[in-house]
Amino acid sequence: MKIALAQLNFIIGDLAGNMMKMRETIDLAKKNDTDLVVFSELSICGYIPKDMLNYESFVRRCTDAVSELASYCNGIGVIIGAPVPSGLKKGKKLYNAAHLIYDGKVQKTIHKSLLPTYDIFDEYRYFEPGGKTHTVEFKGVRIALTICEDLWNLDEPMLYSRTPMDDLIAEKPDLMINISGSPYSYNHVDDRKGRMKYNALHYNLPLIYVNQVGGNTDILFDGGSMFIDNKGVVAKELRYFEEDLQFINWDKDARLEKDEQEHHDRDIGLMHDAIVMGIRDYFNKMGFKRAILGSSGGIDSALVNTLAVEAIGKENVTSVLMPSKYSSKGSITDAEMLANNLGNRYTILPIADMVSSVESILSSEFKDLPADVTEENIQARCRGLLLMAMSNKFHAILLNTSNKSETAVGYSTLYGDMCGGLSPIGDLYKTQIYEMARYINRNMEIIPESIIKKAPSAELRPGQKDSDSLPEYDLLDKILEFYVEDQYGWEEIIDFGFDKDIVTKVVQLVDRNEYKRYQAPPILRISHKAFGPGRQMPLVAKYYN
Amino acid sequence: MKIALAQLNFIIGDLAGNMMKMRETIDLAKKNDTDLVVFSELSICGYIPKDMLNYESFVRRCTDAVSELASYCNGIGVIIGAPVPSGLKKGKKLYNAAHLIYDGKVQKTIHKSLLPTYDIFDEYRYFEPGGKTHTVEFKGVRIALTICEDLWNLDEPMLYSRTPMDDLIAEKPDLMINISGSPYSYNHVDDRKGRMKYNALHYNLPLIYVNQVGGNTDILFDGGSMFIDNKGVVAKELRYFEEDLQFINWDKDARLEKDEQEHHDRDIGLMHDAIVMGIRDYFNKMGFKRAILGSSGGIDSALVNTLAVEAIGKENVTSVLMPSKYSSKGSITDAEMLANNLGNRYTILPIADMVSSVESILSSEFKDLPADVTEENIQARCRGLLLMAMSNKFHAILLNTSNKSETAVGYSTLYGDMCGGLSPIGDLYKTQIYEMARYINRNMEIIPESIIKKAPSAELRPGQKDSDSLPEYDLLDKILEFYVEDQYGWEEIIDFGFDKDIVTKVVQLVDRNEYKRYQAPPILRISHKAFGPGRQMPLVAKYYN
Repeated sequence: MKIALAQLNFIIGDLAGNMMKMRETIDLAKKNDTDLVVFSELSICGYIPKDMLNYESFVRRCTDAVSELASYCNGIGVIIGAPVPSGLKKGKKLYNAAHLIYDGKVQKTIHKSLLPTYDIFDEYRYFEPGGKTHTVEFKGVRIALTICEDLWNLDEPMLYSRTPMDDLIAEKPDLMINISGSPYSYNHVDDRKGRMKYNALHYNLPLIYVNQVGGNTDILFDGGSMFIDNKGVVAKELRYFEEDLQFINWDKDARLEKDEQEHHDRDIGLMHDAIVMGIRDYFNKMGFKRAILGSSGGIDSALVNTLAVEAIGKENVTSVLMPSKYSSKGSITDAEMLANNLGNRYTILPIADMVSSVESILSSEFKDLPADVTEENIQARCRGLLLMAMSNKFHAILLNTSNKSETAVGYSTLYGDMCGGLSPIGDLYKTQIYEMARYINRNMEIIPESIIKKAPSAELRPGQKDSDSLPEYDLLDKILEFYVEDQYGWEEIIDFGFDKDIVTKVVQLVDRNEYKRYQAPPILRISHKAFGPGRQMPLVAKYYN
Repeated sequence: MKIALAQLNFIIGDLAGNMMKMRETIDLAKKNDTDLVVFSELSICGYIPKDMLNYESFVRRCTDAVSELASYCNGIGVIIGAPVPSGLKKGKKLYNAAHLIYDGKVQKTIHKSLLPTYDIFDEYRYFEPGGKTHTVEFKGVRIALTICEDLWNLDEPMLYSRTPMDDLIAEKPDLMINISGSPYSYNHVDDRKGRMKYNALHYNLPLIYVNQVGGNTDILFDGGSMFIDNKGVVAKELRYFEEDLQFINWDKDARLEKDEQEHHDRDIGLMHDAIVMGIRDYFNKMGFKRAILGSSGGIDSALVNTLAVEAIGKENVTSVLMPSKYSSKGSITDAEMLANNLGNRYTILPIADMVSSVESILSSEFKDLPADVTEENIQARCRGLLLMAMSNKFHAILLNTSNKSETAVGYSTLYGDMCGGLSPIGDLYKTQIYEMARYINRNMEIIPESIIKKAPSAELRPGQKDSDSLPEYDLLDKILEFYVEDQYGWEEIIDFGFDKDIVTKVVQLVDRNEYKRYQAPPILRISHKAFGPGRQMPLVAKYYN
């Protein structure tokens, strides 16, 4: 039996576009004498349409699209994912379903049993968990068909009381097929592969695993679909961060060669590719071509500038240099050198006159009050205002240049440097920013060394350095990772051997700046705990510090 | 048996503060020879602590606080809510629990069975549903103790497969007690009372219903705790939007007088009180005293100004008038008159020079390109920048003045008039804004009639009126309510008899502006579907228009 693993990049809600893609794939599969084409989870509408699922008309459209696609499937079998009405008298209105289609119609439908409801996932918001499932048969092959999380109930303690494969294995299936919408994070790639290998070994069954690929706003799907034999050997691994279509000639006794890619935990190359895809898909799927960004001569904006040029082309990127009286000469020349290296257009808009105008308007109110963070914020907000004007006038999306370290501790100005339609590096700690810059420069100096080497500074007052008010980044980032990603309390972090005063200060800064992050742009998620919808903290609360 | 219904306003995560409040209540109850004090759902930590629940140290602190409070409960029974570790080998780590405490320790604990996971609720993110529950006994009275949603599985089709009271009734309880964290919305007050009456009648049991009160960022809890007799008569109803403590002398055969408040659906007075409480609690719980806002002479800012003065006092509110060359004289005099009526300080900061300065900086880029929305946004963003500078310098929270109609269709400027720490009227449609203004003026003219009567305009270009680019608000708001609140698709709305072109335009505007709302401030929720966490739409998507 010849099976096609179809790893496609869908647009959420674009039923016509997604169907077109699937039809083209089916055509190609037919030409290749394929028996069965496997698409990913909720492939009809893209994973995950969120509250679009609350609209009955949306679900009806999905159902109609499945019927339309089914009528196209003669002489070939197809597995697709779709939301389906549950019709239950007691329970949620929908199931997250997988359809087996052949002979022009839906022959079997199974329901996802395990509904992830944590971090960025909230499937229980929409779906009823499926009950006991059964295998489906296609051309004499008995398939244990499951959906994503259904194969993930492996940890002790287990998150779910049931494990669908434990039911299915009793029906003696020949093959497992899992359709998935499993997003990338930098410590998830190996983990996911390991878990899928475990399933194959544990149930002594080959596994076809088809994941979606592409960026959907903040959530990045890496693909990496696989065929794993019953010995847990990856016999075919599809591309990462790209669409891919691969064919497997499978029968029960086939011996397949190992075809596995090597990725390590926190692979900076994958992180880089993830962000580039995320930027590209944001623009493509939004229907925008042009980007602008503020280029300060610092490492963060340099990295965003570089990634943007990679993602959408140097001809579509404009960097804006907005020196103030506190900007060093080096900042301007460094930012110019970067734009020259990348070949994108840049322009210089000095903000001194605008800042003076603002301060003059406010002088009647501020009188002789000493300068404080207000005046620093005014500069950042003047820049934000100019960038947004450029964005409006030239239909260009403003890319935010904040990193995760400063977002965490609130070392940023709301409506100033926090402006932007998308935050490409907001899930990268400062230490990871440097690592990615060095990765980009691995063959030639693209990001000027002078940018990489200078001490981080917001340049909002004379001689300012980040380290004046924050711990050094290597220390800060470690504490942040324990607090934000790993969700340890401050006592635990102190117990790990960190200085009590520093931990307390960092944790307090994180807590007190929830209100800023509430209004931050969407952040491309590359870790297992990014700021954004995956981390939901109360704003008005007493944190325990 | 004498039972105290303790309707308190907790701060999320403030275990020490919440315990102090509960101790004071217990002291008072002891003085009143009370047998049992009933607090609301998750009363130890406030409802709902969101991802604080992911921190083991937080849950441990809650458990310790319960023990500490229990040691204080000698000679009196207490029911409180708390998160408790589930200890399950299969399932979520926590239960949402109610403890019955007496003789200095927790005697019985029950677990919430039905976990709301829709709109603003995401309890399945944290909790495992409780299994079969049993009644608890206190001083010979058998109590069917449940938590909030446990009594709400009443609609056809039912949202949950189990109905906990159907189990509990078999144990022949004498009394139902439900501890709740049920937020206000303007069509929920009567509905909730009706459902609780239904429970009392259906199970032929009296019901003690204790709700939390207070504003927790965007979510407003109205209180309205009740004692309902087994005939479904409300024999005691606690205050709305205020803390309250009431005692019930209850025994099985007691006849109690009806003591019910009359509220109608969409009661503008309750909506007003909800928002005032929301503003007040936001400031009090954040530890801020002062507010500022931009006062344009329009109805929206006039309403926010008035509500802010009611909530935190005229001495704490500064309104800032920021006329441009497009501002009418009437706007300035109206805004001045309003401030004079309210007695709050106001100041005038003309923005013309700043706008000129911005346009001069951008002239090298914009050259001879025609004016468009860019120039309108520059004005709105100059105002936002000045307001934020005032906010920073004077430690005052900026109140946003957007309404729901303009937020829905994106008739607002990101980082301009969308700035603010809190949006008090962002869940009120424009037509409701007028209704509330008239309610405020019911006894005397507080909001000048000239403000109420003028045609809505953003005054960002000469002679501009909202109706130039939007349908009239009475029509717009109806379409929005069908699309946003009731979640009908556009075909259904057209079928209801609305003009196809207008519906299509409105729905497209709503869809295309998800990206703006993503960065909006928290909006006080007064409807059953507010913009914010309760409505989660993808940004990058193809909507079906």
